[in-house]
Amino acid sequence: MKKKNKKVNAAILIIGNEILSGRTQDKNTAFISNWLNNKCGISVNEVRIVPDVEKIIMKNILELSKNFNYVFTTGGIGPTHDDITAQSISKAFKVKYGFNKEAFKILEKYYGKSKFNDGRKKMAKMPQGSKLIYNPSSAAPGFIIKNVLCFPGVPSILNSMIENCKKFLIKGLIVHSKTINFFTVESNISRQLSLIQKKYKKDIDIGSYPFFRLGKIGVSLVSRSTSKKKLSIVHRDLTKLAKLKKIEILKI
Amino acid sequence: MKKKNKKVNAAILIIGNEILSGRTQDKNTAFISNWLNNKCGISVNEVRIVPDVEKIIMKNILELSKNFNYVFTTGGIGPTHDDITAQSISKAFKVKYGFNKEAFKILEKYYGKSKFNDGRKKMAKMPQGSKLIYNPSSAAPGFIIKNVLCFPGVPSILNSMIENCKKFLIKGLIVHSKTINFFTVESNISRQLSLIQKKYKKDIDIGSYPFFRLGKIGVSLVSRSTSKKKLSIVHRDLTKLAKLKKIEILKI
Repeated sequence: MKKKNKKVNAAILIIGNEILSGRTQDKNTAFISNWLNNKCGISVNEVRIVPDVEKIIMKNILELSKNFNYVFTTGGIGPTHDDITAQSISKAFKVKYGFNKEAFKILEKYYGKSKFNDGRKKMAKMPQGSKLIYNPSSAAPGFIIKNVLCFPGVPSILNSMIENCKKFLIKGLIVHSKTINFFTVESNISRQLSLIQKKYKKDIDIGSYPFFRLGKIGVSLVSRSTSKKKLSIVHRDLTKLAKLKKIEILKI
Repeated sequence: MKKKNKKVNAAILIIGNEILSGRTQDKNTAFISNWLNNKCGISVNEVRIVPDVEKIIMKNILELSKNFNYVFTTGGIGPTHDDITAQSISKAFKVKYGFNKEAFKILEKYYGKSKFNDGRKKMAKMPQGSKLIYNPSSAAPGFIIKNVLCFPGVPSILNSMIENCKKFLIKGLIVHSKTINFFTVESNISRQLSLIQKKYKKDIDIGSYPFFRLGKIGVSLVSRSTSKKKLSIVHRDLTKLAKLKKIEILKI
């Protein structure tokens, strides 16, 4: 399929009062971000968490769909009154909100005609022109309209669906990462690290993250790049730094 | 201290490539949001996760500090090259970025003069006019400038500091919540639930969240309101609905 030689990015819009209030821990950001990078070479460049409020969803959909190649939304496509993602996106894009015939058929078959009530029918309503993202767990499909892909909020269901959106995406360059763990404190290596980052600033991003393991404090140095070869070169420099500073490296 | 009779809101800005890339699971949103609501009556109305890029941090600080009463940032105030929160906020607000005398003294005392190197000194630099948020874990203070409060990204350190920012905040109305768990599926109650939500739409927000427990599927209905009395009234209506529909309620 499509070209693999360019940078493709995405934003994630998490829709749901339960995440904002702190009641529920978001797990979808890490899952989607890892999947997009490792399977599609798409980098997630921004995440927003917003409440179940139509105007706010509309505003964010318009902003993010303009600024990023793709927008992945999670939450708000179920059968209850607080599920307003599909309506809000229809309004934002000024397209009709109504039954998608294919989704209607899928759900009618899944529930059986006699049990296909209004709440369940609501899950077949989406912005006109949407294409379906199939759901092998609980039938109710997600959808893609323009560059916005809509998924449910329940992590296990979302995870089971994600492969089904791959065919809609243009692939980009995969960002690889290499980690080295030093038993030291950040401030002991910050000057040298800064020099190494400057040396490779065009191709490599080095992040520094403190950890506490085996009763000792340390720093994970994570290098990220689209070039595996350049990652190895930086890794060599970092290993040299450890030797110079007599820093123990954690083997894992 | 201040008035307790109004709505006060906040946004959270999570700064860090490691969260965006999915390498690290964000835990600060849930912690800050719960603490703000329960201890200060402040609702978190938006969260953004952005990379360690100066222009992007500046843009988001300006947008969020204009649109919300407070902005809580996490990450990017350590000693390494990728810690650029303090510089970026200084630029955004067009104030000088330099040593805070009090922070300098705290850190010098903590590390001892001989070990107070450049990386460590960097943690005493912040936007001019900042007030300190003390850090009982690892000395390096957070700070508040205008309505923006800056914390480190490491959850255990952030958690230990949060009480120290309370004195800077105007308090609002605490949003209470009451949960009832039905052993049923959302689509079985969505119509009635919608009517109950409409009846109390001025004072109550009802959220509906599927769960899987004890081998059965169910729905948590979470009502949120600043009035405990109104929560009890809604709870009575929901209990009636369960009785009417012969739905078992999960006792916890």
